[in-house]
Amino acid sequence: MSTFVVVGGDAAGMSAASKAKRDNPDLDVVVFERGEWVSYGACGLPYYIKGEIQSLEDLISVTPEQFREERDIDLRTGHDVVDIDPETRIVTARSSDGDVVQPYDHLLIATGSTAVTPPIDGIDREGVYTLGSMSDGKGLREYVSRARNDGNLQQPDRGPACHFLETCNGPIGIVGGGYIGVEMAEALAANDFEVHLFQRGDRILKQFSKATSETVLEHLHEQDVAVYLDTEIRELVGGESVEAIVANEERIPVEMVLVGTGVRPRTELAEAAGVELGKTGAIATDEYRETNVPDVYAAGDCAEAAHVVTGEPVYIPLALTANRHGRVIGQTVAGTPTMGGGVAGTAAVKAFDIEAARTGLLHDEALEAGFEPLTETIKAKSRAGYYPEGGTVQVTLTIDRPTGRILGGSLVSEYGEGAVHRSHALVGAVTEGNTVDELSNYDLAYAPPFNTTWDPVLTAAKVLSGKRQSPSGA
Amino acid sequence: MSTFVVVGGDAAGMSAASKAKRDNPDLDVVVFERGEWVSYGACGLPYYIKGEIQSLEDLISVTPEQFREERDIDLRTGHDVVDIDPETRIVTARSSDGDVVQPYDHLLIATGSTAVTPPIDGIDREGVYTLGSMSDGKGLREYVSRARNDGNLQQPDRGPACHFLETCNGPIGIVGGGYIGVEMAEALAANDFEVHLFQRGDRILKQFSKATSETVLEHLHEQDVAVYLDTEIRELVGGESVEAIVANEERIPVEMVLVGTGVRPRTELAEAAGVELGKTGAIATDEYRETNVPDVYAAGDCAEAAHVVTGEPVYIPLALTANRHGRVIGQTVAGTPTMGGGVAGTAAVKAFDIEAARTGLLHDEALEAGFEPLTETIKAKSRAGYYPEGGTVQVTLTIDRPTGRILGGSLVSEYGEGAVHRSHALVGAVTEGNTVDELSNYDLAYAPPFNTTWDPVLTAAKVLSGKRQSPSGA
Repeated sequence: MSTFVVVGGDAAGMSAASKAKRDNPDLDVVVFERGEWVSYGACGLPYYIKGEIQSLEDLISVTPEQFREERDIDLRTGHDVVDIDPETRIVTARSSDGDVVQPYDHLLIATGSTAVTPPIDGIDREGVYTLGSMSDGKGLREYVSRARNDGNLQQPDRGPACHFLETCNGPIGIVGGGYIGVEMAEALAANDFEVHLFQRGDRILKQFSKATSETVLEHLHEQDVAVYLDTEIRELVGGESVEAIVANEERIPVEMVLVGTGVRPRTELAEAAGVELGKTGAIATDEYRETNVPDVYAAGDCAEAAHVVTGEPVYIPLALTANRHGRVIGQTVAGTPTMGGGVAGTAAVKAFDIEAARTGLLHDEALEAGFEPLTETIKAKSRAGYYPEGGTVQVTLTIDRPTGRILGGSLVSEYGEGAVHRSHALVGAVTEGNTVDELSNYDLAYAPPFNTTWDPVLTAAKVLSGKRQSPSGA
Repeated sequence: MSTFVVVGGDAAGMSAASKAKRDNPDLDVVVFERGEWVSYGACGLPYYIKGEIQSLEDLISVTPEQFREERDIDLRTGHDVVDIDPETRIVTARSSDGDVVQPYDHLLIATGSTAVTPPIDGIDREGVYTLGSMSDGKGLREYVSRARNDGNLQQPDRGPACHFLETCNGPIGIVGGGYIGVEMAEALAANDFEVHLFQRGDRILKQFSKATSETVLEHLHEQDVAVYLDTEIRELVGGESVEAIVANEERIPVEMVLVGTGVRPRTELAEAAGVELGKTGAIATDEYRETNVPDVYAAGDCAEAAHVVTGEPVYIPLALTANRHGRVIGQTVAGTPTMGGGVAGTAAVKAFDIEAARTGLLHDEALEAGFEPLTETIKAKSRAGYYPEGGTVQVTLTIDRPTGRILGGSLVSEYGEGAVHRSHALVGAVTEGNTVDELSNYDLAYAPPFNTTWDPVLTAAKVLSGKRQSPSGA
């Protein structure tokens, strides 16, 4: 009888455990999770804090009891793995009851990531939050509820941040204009908080195209979110609790600060066991997600993966990759060696009433990877021009000029007008290395309630194809 | 100076004319259109009849004046081409002013299609309509307006057909459960008509998967559309005007009948000029859309095209293909020989409050084409399970069992929940011949407001991949 041990009970870990046990019921599967939650949908936390989801339990797709009873997985919550010994193939886990040792035949390290806290003076004051875990989410929801109870707030709505209203709560400072920053601006503004969002660089959502960033920025302005670009936070001042953000030469009073400046992989345990990290600083694996240590796998937010365009390792910690790679490790461990594919860096975000997606390499990334990128942004109607509803889809497409290969794209539209689902058309093209002319010829679905005859994705391809063929490239 | 003559001024014809002139302004471009309308969006007619679009002119993307003045195209409406002589390279067009002869260097036949009228007794009675042209649409809108004025109807709404209400207009019979039948059921029901829809076969939308057909059928029932399957119309009885449909042994009183039983290509002119038809009965072309007659091209609803999966010619007359093939003919004629790609048979339809799309070869088509199809239908939430809104996406996926190749798919969801745009993920896979495992590994966009971590398309691929690998195939 063979034993598969998993360290970390979120997306990658529980996907691997479930798949391994399902494919090979004879396998002993043991999962150590240091917290009390497993298989939690951390991506849903902003909507819980917003008040659209009533209970933290709603974010749990499968409960610990279900894993234990229905899936026959030996899940041990409250167990922090403190040592891995690859020589003896034994892990040591610490719980309130003391240490346990557990031998393994196969091991998965799925220790996830931790929120980065930038070196800002005063970041350890009370009232400064990050959003990396369920308990972070719980704390933020409690903060929002307290503030709402103190004030005279009604049910959360989707209205704009009440930047200039007397009834506002807050003000709140958000440090970082990435996914978390933008989603939390929506969540807090919907609860009538005055929101100030600070971004170090010259645009928000820097993983997306410049055009997408600008469209989202305009929308945040419309929603009365105060956005500060090119702004370095110098200090969080106050007494025990934070009272103001000092940024550039300004002092902006705040009652609470949310720091969303990205995550870093948790690799300490792996490193101590002799597992090698890659150049991204996350755990390096081969295509089967196996590390340099035999029978030790790594997946999810602690691991890097190869980019489908360049083949080079990248660190893009997102939920689908964690699930997919966890799942293939489960298959492999159960006896069917399976590769899980690379990552395309695809991501989606909702910001108030708009939605955006991106995939592949965008202009600057393509330059950096040695391509000769040609990029074009188009705007097109989201439904037939004569159709009575609809909005605008903006598509930025990047190709390699010499070969015409589709490298990446970034889309934005009103929420519900399909920027995100339309990005599905690009993922295959990016992954398979299709050319812009091949994409132009794709027979995509059309009917007036859904798009113009040429879907905006095709229009972008046509325009870029023409630009590529013109001698001036203009 | 070279002359490019186009016969037919709709999607294929005007796309070709515009592209040829733009790419080579020295070209003389002459278009003959027998009607008064050009570049009309016939796909929008149901929404015009429904009352959501106020004017027929709104369906026109570019007016005749714009083609003449802005695009410098010699567009002659009211000119019916009656002869093509490939020997002398001269076409003869007839107008109210008499005949004109026009020499050509390149010729495009884009004569479109005509609505099929099945051989039913009494089909020539008054009150029997088809929907193939702008004037058909005008007539139907006038019918709806008259009926509404005679009754005490309010503004059109999206409510159910008032099948059992006293205030109903109609009843109306729709013959044929394809796109037109379903879209017109919506358009008429929204105007408070009692709608009876007759389908000869055992399901509506037979181009879609059986699961999709069933879901749409259930929805039509919910909307109080009376649907009669396996029903052959024997006769349309009445006096001068139609008064009842005799179907099976029943006699269903109707005030109007809409016949939507498909279209056939208009090929008479081409045939008379020695242009060969393919086995589908539409004009055969090579990959450049050139017919057997040198420098004579054909595109749009009068021509067949190769299917991307089988490479075999098929007759699937849809708007995007007409536009795309017209455009590449324009490029070719302007000096840059360009192939336009095949067709995947992708189509989309809205039916009341649901949407559906299909692409590629579905189960029975795959069987017929010599594949060994394996098909699975899954249902999945359209957004994260905990997200407060959302519905259900049903995905039917068909693969070739021995190779795992994706052959086709069919999707249906509530309107706005993304079945149609999600089909974009499948078109590239079908076209490029990707396997189900490749599709499973696609890094599709994910965030809670848009899908579950595994988009329903990926879930379908996962399930099918597992089914394929299991020894029993079950």
